[in-house]
Amino acid sequence: MTVVIIVNFKSYEEGTGRRGFELARICERASLDSGVDVVVCPPLVHLGQYADELSVPVYAQHVDGARVGSYTGHVTPMSVKEGGGQGTLINHSERRMRIADIERAVAECRRVEISTVVCTNSIGVSKACASLAPTYIAIEPPELIGGDVPVTKAKPEVISGAVEAIKSIDKGIEVLCGAGIKTGKDVRKAIELGSSGVLVASGVVKSKDPEKAMMDLVSGVP
Amino acid sequence: MTVVIIVNFKSYEEGTGRRGFELARICERASLDSGVDVVVCPPLVHLGQYADELSVPVYAQHVDGARVGSYTGHVTPMSVKEGGGQGTLINHSERRMRIADIERAVAECRRVEISTVVCTNSIGVSKACASLAPTYIAIEPPELIGGDVPVTKAKPEVISGAVEAIKSIDKGIEVLCGAGIKTGKDVRKAIELGSSGVLVASGVVKSKDPEKAMMDLVSGVP
Amino acid sequence: MTVVIIVNFKSYEEGTGRRGFELARICERASLDSGVDVVVCPPLVHLGQYADELSVPVYAQHVDGARVGSYTGHVTPMSVKEGGGQGTLINHSERRMRIADIERAVAECRRVEISTVVCTNSIGVSKACASLAPTYIAIEPPELIGGDVPVTKAKPEVISGAVEAIKSIDKGIEVLCGAGIKTGKDVRKAIELGSSGVLVASGVVKSKDPEKAMMDLVSGVP
Amino acid sequence: MTVVIIVNFKSYEEGTGRRGFELARICERASLDSGVDVVVCPPLVHLGQYADELSVPVYAQHVDGARVGSYTGHVTPMSVKEGGGQGTLINHSERRMRIADIERAVAECRRVEISTVVCTNSIGVSKACASLAPTYIAIEPPELIGGDVPVTKAKPEVISGAVEAIKSIDKGIEVLCGAGIKTGKDVRKAIELGSSGVLVASGVVKSKDPEKAMMDLVSGVP
Repeated sequence: MTVVIIVNFKSYEEGTGRRGFELARICERASLDSGVDVVVCPPLVHLGQYADELSVPVYAQHVDGARVGSYTGHVTPMSVKEGGGQGTLINHSERRMRIADIERAVAECRRVEISTVVCTNSIGVSKACASLAPTYIAIEPPELIGGDVPVTKAKPEVISGAVEAIKSIDKGIEVLCGAGIKTGKDVRKAIELGSSGVLVASGVVKSKDPEKAMMDLVSGVP
Repeated sequence: MTVVIIVNFKSYEEGTGRRGFELARICERASLDSGVDVVVCPPLVHLGQYADELSVPVYAQHVDGARVGSYTGHVTPMSVKEGGGQGTLINHSERRMRIADIERAVAECRRVEISTVVCTNSIGVSKACASLAPTYIAIEPPELIGGDVPVTKAKPEVISGAVEAIKSIDKGIEVLCGAGIKTGKDVRKAIELGSSGVLVASGVVKSKDPEKAMMDLVSGVP
Repeated sequence: MTVVIIVNFKSYEEGTGRRGFELARICERASLDSGVDVVVCPPLVHLGQYADELSVPVYAQHVDGARVGSYTGHVTPMSVKEGGGQGTLINHSERRMRIADIERAVAECRRVEISTVVCTNSIGVSKACASLAPTYIAIEPPELIGGDVPVTKAKPEVISGAVEAIKSIDKGIEVLCGAGIKTGKDVRKAIELGSSGVLVASGVVKSKDPEKAMMDLVSGVP
Repeated sequence: MTVVIIVNFKSYEEGTGRRGFELARICERASLDSGVDVVVCPPLVHLGQYADELSVPVYAQHVDGARVGSYTGHVTPMSVKEGGGQGTLINHSERRMRIADIERAVAECRRVEISTVVCTNSIGVSKACASLAPTYIAIEPPELIGGDVPVTKAKPEVISGAVEAIKSIDKGIEVLCGAGIKTGKDVRKAIELGSSGVLVASGVVKSKDPEKAMMDLVSGVP
């Protein structure tokens, strides 16, 4: 199992444009210095732009279920691949999808060979999504997202419960967790609970010192 | 009044990745050679990537109404601006929006100073959207989109009717039309009917000879 | 101009089932006693059930834009009419719609001859919706909905501004307002500001004494 | 295992208002005469109205995930229960839902004790939804819905495959199938393939002789 830290830039001002690119560079340096896998998820319009310059994997924040064709304003897995993306978030709590579209998106990402991180809000939905065979499932209790208490502290049983439920369906799926993750200690705890890494957003992007925040996060990986 | 030709790449394979970029170059050349304003709308993930290289304006295919913040997978007007985009389609028939979100998107685009093309399906919706004061309103009867008969021939009265309805609300809004537009003759007719230009997609992107298609289109501008 | 008071039961427990029906009876009595027009909007599944028994008009809380056909789970204007409904809310802040669907819904309601109350969140959206010619437009600033300060006090200029904007497009549309409305005094103020009535929800449905709340509301009508 | 035939009235004109009620009576008679369980799904606004009069179970065509509260225009499980409904379709192909909402809807229906029929479009989605533990899962390949070839003939392996996948997760879930079902022969085949019944819509509602169609359908139950 390889641990991964996925940094979601959301639509934060600090994660957009030139500032967002500087932030991506910080993530890249933390990865290169520590040897820990770090993935960046910039705003959609920057995906290709950033991917052209970075050595760490760039993931999309969202893809639609569509293949190619008359889908104006949709994000297709193929366009992510062609733009230089190596994976994508799917069904993030700020961009929930219909289940038939999740199945289609995961299948199309598999076809074009990019990784999938299906985000879920509960153990039940995690188990359900395991049947769709994504690369990762990331459990994030919505009420903790953007907050100050990490999921690893507030609801450790949700992480271990999701790991158990997901693995009962498909042992090949890696489990991530997120919501309130900010420190290396949180990362270590997440791994102890059976996950393969974390999703982090405001903890890095809105930090006064993103470089320090990143270095702390990667330090939590054993 | 300056005539504009907006080329929507949708999620067509021919408009994605390297092929999409070559297509954008063809559009750029047609614009430079003819002096006609041409705008390209590539898939969202390519927006910044293409805008870094092109001299013609690049528009997004869609923006959400959000400003900045916790909006994973949303396309903010600010990210389009920062990515190098000069405008955006809004409410395309393949990506319809709620009216409150259209108002928010148009207002936020105005704030960050990028152009807005609100797409509509009828004279009634065109008139309604005129009250939101976008830069352009583009009327496209849904049943003609992607078809072989241009709107200028099938429903010329819809274009002239939309022009009249929109101008009765706000004379400053330019009117575009689309659906089935393929030739310079269609462009000329669109202008005669009172519009300031056209939206074109399959007519160029799915053409066997996109260069010829583009040269024909720009030739229709008086 | 006839003043109307529309009572939206939302999905409140107090507005559902037998309790909801008793509440509808209270609204009916207040109307009969005072001579003021009162409309009730029960949960969708109760529409026909309540309409069979009541003498006051029953409106749906929502309709979709569909006519008849393969639309499982959609609410068609024809079904509302056939169920005994005399009108419907459209685009309520808790059930926002796409603009093309609003146009379709209003047109279909006109065809089957039921009234339409298009709800809006701003003066701009109110003006836009006026071009679609509904029976009523109801402006409700979202941030005041369900709160303790009535819109008539917090933002009187939004009501008078909406009245002016709507009437500039179509003098035949009556304007309503809502958000935080609880007393007869609020109703009187709403009428002074140029509206033809109010939308009220928690002020009646969540009241400890709905009968008293209703009698107070109707007392505000001159 | 008890076989059930669920008749979905959709928004067909023949299934609305007085005509819809006569159709429900026909379904009721077929059930009483044959002893086969028949369920009717009328348009939402008729649910309580019809349930007050009928002896067969009435199901809603759709419920939202909301419990009670400020949910204008949403259909809550509690309102279905209070209106006299005994169950509901969820995630029908004409009313797809987000996975987190399906989980919430199923859980809330369980709490208020009404049955749930989660509709799915593929074996993968069926398996996924099995983890949410609804009463029934109904598989309906979208391309066959409303058509002339029954799913039992066109894609028998999808039904048996769904049965196997669903039972591998939760043996307690009964499996239904639908799309193109019209005759007693189709019903018999559906049961042979391991399902516990069918969803039928146009085959009855749009039939020239709904009574005959119903009698034929129930005759297929062993």
